[in-house]
Amino acid sequence: MKQHFEQQLEFLSELEKLKSVIRRTYLLDSSRRENDAEHSWQVSVMAILFGEYASHKDLDMLKVLKILLLHDAVEVYAGDTYIYDTLARSTQKEREGKAADRLFALLPDNQCSEFHKLWDEYEAAQTPEAKYANAIDRFQPLWHNYMTKGKAWQEHNVAAEATHRINDKIREGSSFLWEYGRDMIVQAVKKGYLNEK
Amino acid sequence: MKQHFEQQLEFLSELEKLKSVIRRTYLLDSSRRENDAEHSWQVSVMAILFGEYASHKDLDMLKVLKILLLHDAVEVYAGDTYIYDTLARSTQKEREGKAADRLFALLPDNQCSEFHKLWDEYEAAQTPEAKYANAIDRFQPLWHNYMTKGKAWQEHNVAAEATHRINDKIREGSSFLWEYGRDMIVQAVKKGYLNEK
Repeated sequence: MKQHFEQQLEFLSELEKLKSVIRRTYLLDSSRRENDAEHSWQVSVMAILFGEYASHKDLDMLKVLKILLLHDAVEVYAGDTYIYDTLARSTQKEREGKAADRLFALLPDNQCSEFHKLWDEYEAAQTPEAKYANAIDRFQPLWHNYMTKGKAWQEHNVAAEATHRINDKIREGSSFLWEYGRDMIVQAVKKGYLNEK
Repeated sequence: MKQHFEQQLEFLSELEKLKSVIRRTYLLDSSRRENDAEHSWQVSVMAILFGEYASHKDLDMLKVLKILLLHDAVEVYAGDTYIYDTLARSTQKEREGKAADRLFALLPDNQCSEFHKLWDEYEAAQTPEAKYANAIDRFQPLWHNYMTKGKAWQEHNVAAEATHRINDKIREGSSFLWEYGRDMIVQAVKKGYLNEK
C-alpha cells in the first residue's frame, strides 16, 4: 500500500507544476495573469454554483468536478495553448495526447485508466458533463476579459469575430451562459474593449 | 434570473481574492509560497485520489469536494491564520465566523444556506466528510514541509511536538495518512528539517 501511495504522490508532485503554468487570462483586478491551478479551482467552484444553468439536467456533478480539477493536467508537459492561437492549436491535440499518456501513467493502473478516460471525455466534449465543463472553462476567461476591459484580448489582437466563434461552444453546455456571454461580447465591442474585426 | 446570476458573479468576484491570500506553505520546488486558490485546488485533487485511505467508507465525495473547494473562502476577509500561531488561533473562530456570514450572504438564499452550512460542518469536523477534508487539509502542508526540507517550519520555529499535536487530527479522517504523516515527522527530525523541541 505504501508503494501504491507513493506512486500517487509522484503524480501529485508532477501535477503541482500547474501552479507555474501561466495562462493569458488576468485576475479580475488586472494585477497579474493567473496560473492553471488557480484557474482549475475557480472553474470548479463556478461549476458547482452554476449547475442550475446547465442545458442537461441531472448532471453527474462529481464527474464534472473530477473533469475540471484535472482538465488542464496535461499542460504540465504541453504548456498552455492560447485558445485564439491558430498555429499552436493545430498541434495541440498531438502534443496534449502524448502528455496525457505520460502524466496519467504515473498513477496506479485503475486511477490512470479513470483519469485518462475523463480527460478524453472532456476533450471529445460529447457527454453532458463534458459539454458543461467545456462551457464553464470558456465562460470564465470571457468574464475575466470583460471585467478587465479586454486586457488579454488587446494584448493578443483578438477580435469579436473569433470571440464569438470560440465561445459559441458554451451554448452546448449552457444556453443561459452563452446568452450572457454573447451580451458581454456585444457590450465589450461597444465599450471599446474588443475590436470588431 | 439575470439578477440571480449577477449575485453569484458578485460572490465569485469576492472569492477570487483567494488567489492573493498567501499561505505559509511553499511550493514543492521551494520557489515561493502558495496561495489559497492553488491550495484549494490541490487538496481537492488529493481528496479524489486518496479516497481509498479514508477511515469512513462510502464517503459522499461530492460533498467533500464542495467543502474543500470553499474551506478557505472566509480568508478573503479574515486572512490566513497559521496553524502554529497560537495567538492568532485564539481569535480565529470569531474572525472567521463573521467573515463567513458576510461572504456567503452575497449568494442567493438557497446557496448561501448550503455553503454556510458546509463551512460550519467543516469547522465542526464531526461528520465523515468533514473529518476526511480536515485530514487532507493538514496532510498537504505536512507533505510540502517535508519535501522542502522544513523550510516553513524553520521560518516559524515550529518543533516536532507541535507538529505531532496539530497533525494528530489527520487520524480521525484517515489512519493511513496519519501513519504516513507521522513517519514523515520522525524522518524530518532525524534529517534536521524539524527541531525536536
